[in-house]
Amino acid sequence: KIKHGIKDVKEFIEKLASRGKVDPLSDNFARYLDENDKLRHLRYEFSIPKARDIVSDGIEALSPEDDSVYFCGNSLGLMPRRTRDLVNQELDVWAASGVVGHFKHKHNRPWISIEDNVVEKMAEIVGAKPIEIAVMNTLTSNLHLLMASFYTPNTKKTRKKILIEPMAFPSDLYAVESQIRFHGLDPAKELIKMVPSEGENFVSLDSILKIIEKEGHTISLVLFSGVHYYTGQFFKMKKITEAAQKKGCIVGFDLSHAVGNVVLKLHKWGIDFAAWCSYKYLNSGPGGIAGIFLHEKHANDFNRPRFAGWWGSDRKSRFQLDQQFKPIPGAGGFQVSNPSVLNVVSLMSSLDIFSKTSMVHLRAKSLVLTGYLEYLLDKQLNGLGFKIITPRDPHQRGCQLSLKFLEENIREKVSKELVSYGIVVDERNDTIRVAPNPMYNNFSEVFRFVKALKIIMGDLGVKV
Amino acid sequence: KIKHGIKDVKEFIEKLASRGKVDPLSDNFARYLDENDKLRHLRYEFSIPKARDIVSDGIEALSPEDDSVYFCGNSLGLMPRRTRDLVNQELDVWAASGVVGHFKHKHNRPWISIEDNVVEKMAEIVGAKPIEIAVMNTLTSNLHLLMASFYTPNTKKTRKKILIEPMAFPSDLYAVESQIRFHGLDPAKELIKMVPSEGENFVSLDSILKIIEKEGHTISLVLFSGVHYYTGQFFKMKKITEAAQKKGCIVGFDLSHAVGNVVLKLHKWGIDFAAWCSYKYLNSGPGGIAGIFLHEKHANDFNRPRFAGWWGSDRKSRFQLDQQFKPIPGAGGFQVSNPSVLNVVSLMSSLDIFSKTSMVHLRAKSLVLTGYLEYLLDKQLNGLGFKIITPRDPHQRGCQLSLKFLEENIREKVSKELVSYGIVVDERNDTIRVAPNPMYNNFSEVFRFVKALKIIMGDLGVKV
Ligand SMILES: Cc1ncc(COP(=O)(O)O)c(C=O)c1O
Ligand SMILES: Cc1ncc(COP(=O)(O)O)c(C=O)c1O
Repeated sequence: KIKHGIKDVKEFIEKLASRGKVDPLSDNFARYLDENDKLRHLRYEFSIPKARDIVSDGIEALSPEDDSVYFCGNSLGLMPRRTRDLVNQELDVWAASGVVGHFKHKHNRPWISIEDNVVEKMAEIVGAKPIEIAVMNTLTSNLHLLMASFYTPNTKKTRKKILIEPMAFPSDLYAVESQIRFHGLDPAKELIKMVPSEGENFVSLDSILKIIEKEGHTISLVLFSGVHYYTGQFFKMKKITEAAQKKGCIVGFDLSHAVGNVVLKLHKWGIDFAAWCSYKYLNSGPGGIAGIFLHEKHANDFNRPRFAGWWGSDRKSRFQLDQQFKPIPGAGGFQVSNPSVLNVVSLMSSLDIFSKTSMVHLRAKSLVLTGYLEYLLDKQLNGLGFKIITPRDPHQRGCQLSLKFLEENIREKVSKELVSYGIVVDERNDTIRVAPNPMYNNFSEVFRFVKALKIIMGDLGVKV
Repeated sequence: KIKHGIKDVKEFIEKLASRGKVDPLSDNFARYLDENDKLRHLRYEFSIPKARDIVSDGIEALSPEDDSVYFCGNSLGLMPRRTRDLVNQELDVWAASGVVGHFKHKHNRPWISIEDNVVEKMAEIVGAKPIEIAVMNTLTSNLHLLMASFYTPNTKKTRKKILIEPMAFPSDLYAVESQIRFHGLDPAKELIKMVPSEGENFVSLDSILKIIEKEGHTISLVLFSGVHYYTGQFFKMKKITEAAQKKGCIVGFDLSHAVGNVVLKLHKWGIDFAAWCSYKYLNSGPGGIAGIFLHEKHANDFNRPRFAGWWGSDRKSRFQLDQQFKPIPGAGGFQVSNPSVLNVVSLMSSLDIFSKTSMVHLRAKSLVLTGYLEYLLDKQLNGLGFKIITPRDPHQRGCQLSLKFLEENIREKVSKELVSYGIVVDERNDTIRVAPNPMYNNFSEVFRFVKALKIIMGDLGVKV
């Protein structure tokens, strides 16, 4: 039985191998793990790209009809097969009956309340109550809408600062800087950007708690990601939230890389608000519709400023000339516009797959899958021109491992060669990010990846 | 030759009839007009709903296989047939190659710059330069993003007010009220809502100019719609803009009901900013992606506050860790998030049909089509329990006529009965809004509508 209790990955993997009586470095072990994977059927819910479709200039090491090894769900999740049906059903309704689809819908998804098809499932995935969830807009827009309500430095003159993680995603950084400027303040003074811990790329919980302890009384908003896009660090969200709220700060999270990746308990952890995109681990497609969380404790607080729109107003009067904004309690009151139907069903298609399992099960597999990747990298390629900058503690990371290459030249060649092996990873700046997704990836793919990487590095003359 | 010079609709229609040697009240005239309609082929670009798909409880007056009469493009435009192909092409790319679609795309629409497929066409339709246009988010979100930049009452202490049209669309009203409150001000004091002219539902240009003359120096923002959703009034955008700007106001427009409906010259008219949805006359589907216009004169003004995001930052550095917001000059700099690919191509499909004609041609047909509707209503049903509250001057309206019913009871029955005739119109509050769309509607449909309405009213015992 796979448990979340894994402490030492190496020990755990070797115990599994000895239980299966296989060499942990052999492809037999990968096959053994796949055979014992209770979630392996989920892969067939997705369209897995073929090698031929991702390789540009000739395929070296595999047949074009082979599946690619897609380790890039941290950038764009794969398409659930059912998405095509759902999207085309909506086109059918539009084609057949135009505006009538808002009220009468062959598949029982009248557009007037299309978002109802995803809210509960989304709530389940992030550990929230339905009233705490809305599905709307895009991520960065939502961060702005939420900060318009929750970053209000001028009401409390001594509390103006925003604290963010080291190397925040550019869009988040631009968003907070522009929010600070919006209030006539100077980001150089009011934005505290954490720096990585000595010798690391990620930041220890200790340093975070220390800065909150020291600066908390001047901080209006703590905005972290749940899982860091670059290092893959899974922040101790509960501890950060508790510490910051004790100091009177508002705590928000960008969960783009956390949702669908790690187990979240947003309600229980008491987080004030969160926002995320859905095209990564939620597989909703490029530019898919985004999600927000607003803690129940704020559900009936209508005194904060908020940027209002009709979709956030009481449903019964939405189509009347009755011109009085009556905010829906909870996250729904932050909706501004009628949502894209194609995007909602595209998300729904993926959330329905999540409903066939649970985040707890996915995470259990993920811990082993990424643990296995780490184990093989350590055993087969240790010291080979790159460093794993993701925390080694499996509970401080999601499914992604980030390999920081010491030589740009090598990194570029590796990443190009990987493609010719039909392997898709994300290369960004100095790092190759590898994200085996427990929903559609398997252990044999991890094996294939490490094997290919070793050959490539050898060919490049990097010494093992 | 149909010209925009129409002054007196009745005279114009009768001249056309006498030229064709047909009785203007006969169905022959409708057929004559259809035969002479140079745009009639455009109808076949769209999926026209069948009567059977829009009728709920039995069809009275036509065969279920007949086309419905769809006069509801002011609420949701019909689906272009090609939309299905384009949307499925994107699903193909996603299914076949995942994230690789951002850079390598079978149909030459790499997602990384997917918006480039619509910006120029959109610019053409609203009379703008490409640098003035962005396609992003949803309408109400965009209004907020634009007001965050252009409604800044606290920088000029004596200029805090917002002037809006009578009976503004609820979402716009909520948006401006919440913007005013956001700045710590009171909408009861700072929001000037115009009232309709004496005995009318719409408002005369004179009253608008008067209030601007009188209050202009206290007004920060004038926010009108281009075409009013309820009355159908096409505001004199150029005159309003000139007058308000002379007084030092910023002028913005909500063009939801204007874009794709009337000829716009946003650049030439010097409008500061505009926003619109695309699911009405632009036929992009429920909740489709929205558009904004930012006048070229503001393209390089980076000193205003703005809510920033990575998609508005210089393309070359978008994927780098280089964390410095470098706004794209023009409207593009207001983008915050990567846009929905499905929504962009769905819009593209419709804009490509616009490219086969021009707004000038569409408007020329529209003036006659709606003029013909007005003519028949006047001749056949004059005084019959409703009043046309849309301006009678064809140049002060778009394609929509709004019929205000005196008795609620009658209106409800009429609207129900129309459905059983396979006719789709929009009933909202006290009004039935009828919007013959020059792109896919024809003159025979107008004839059918008026004929049905007359029978229904007769059956209801309303005296002709
Ligand atoms: C004039 C006008 N403004 C605003 C809206 C709200 O649009 P959205 O829900 O796309 O923000 C509509 C929708 O019909 C509208 O007609
Ligand atoms: C952590 C994080 N924040 C923000 C964004 C920006 O997302 P969007 O373009 O959907 O606003 C991304 C996109 O990859 C992200 O990974």
